[in-house]
Amino acid sequence: MHITKTDIQNLERIKRLNLINSISGIKPANLIGTKNDRGISNLAIFSSVIHLGSNPALFGMILRPTGEVPRHTYENILFDGKYTINHVPQSIIKKAHYTSAKFDESVSEFEACALTEEYIDGFSAPFVKECSLKLGLSHKQSIPIEANNTILVIGQVEHILIPDEMIKDTYMLDLSISNTVGISGLNTYYALTKMESFPYARVEELPSF
Amino acid sequence: MHITKTDIQNLERIKRLNLINSISGIKPANLIGTKNDRGISNLAIFSSVIHLGSNPALFGMILRPTGEVPRHTYENILFDGKYTINHVPQSIIKKAHYTSAKFDESVSEFEACALTEEYIDGFSAPFVKECSLKLGLSHKQSIPIEANNTILVIGQVEHILIPDEMIKDTYMLDLSISNTVGISGLNTYYALTKMESFPYARVEELPSF
Repeated sequence: MHITKTDIQNLERIKRLNLINSISGIKPANLIGTKNDRGISNLAIFSSVIHLGSNPALFGMILRPTGEVPRHTYENILFDGKYTINHVPQSIIKKAHYTSAKFDESVSEFEACALTEEYIDGFSAPFVKECSLKLGLSHKQSIPIEANNTILVIGQVEHILIPDEMIKDTYMLDLSISNTVGISGLNTYYALTKMESFPYARVEELPSF
Repeated sequence: MHITKTDIQNLERIKRLNLINSISGIKPANLIGTKNDRGISNLAIFSSVIHLGSNPALFGMILRPTGEVPRHTYENILFDGKYTINHVPQSIIKKAHYTSAKFDESVSEFEACALTEEYIDGFSAPFVKECSLKLGLSHKQSIPIEANNTILVIGQVEHILIPDEMIKDTYMLDLSISNTVGISGLNTYYALTKMESFPYARVEELPSF
């Protein structure tokens, strides 16, 4: 099937959202934890976290502009400067998904979705106890994307909380140990099964195909 | 285990690359196809493709700056204005991985890695015949990211080539039909197994957890 730019524009809105949100492939499922100016915690699922660089350790995520819908996560990041990224494990996909409902800002999604806040000394943003792999970040920069009025929010890693058994000699992580899931589209969750690791690719060491 | 910002800075370079590249979760595995000013095709694996918006249908990807290493993909996108995003299926993960070797610009990775170029009328960039789900894009905007001197390259979807059987009533895609894989870190490939789809989350329709 061949779908053109015009076909995409003419698709019914929900079909277009489903199609275009799925079509770049698998996305990471992460819960973003923040705290607002009244001390109320917030938790929201995002599939747009992206690796920007390792030294310094920087991650980005794409946010919709503040507009008709309140965007508590971004307001809290601007207020507090800190946020957490928590890998969603298989055991909590339903709870994680429902953090996307539009709760009033007086409601903590931790409570509404039966998840548990966890803190470390000297870091204000809440981690998710049910997640085994989690990051604490400081907000570094926000870049407006003119093409569609979104924002790339960039943070630097301050803390990594990770199960001992995930750290091997090489520091390559096996995401099946943390039971980390992926998302396609807006609401479909996938389990991950490790297939194979290949060496760093060099022209003079090509295998036979 | 608790790893701090200082620990990350003090890690040996390869360990840091492995750790930080894995720690945001699963990433999509896509082959980016382009053509240079001499008509030679180029193919490179990227795990940084990200959904930016559905109307218009925009995708971004993060590129390292042109510097000591030549970045043929970006040069070609700037020259031609067109590129393709091809989902890597399970059957070609080894070939796809080795497109990351630093081939001379006179060498097409299609030929070096035993993959097949495919074209559609009126679109100059090469698709990958072995991939069942593929996109043709026009370059829209490049945004420099000052925090670490990378570039967010943004393109709009012009064409979607997709197996008929992936299109259901809702236009939600099941990535297991296209055998699409994910990547963690720099070189580990994962198969995807669909777990569950949830409805759009509404506060007044919360399930019991």
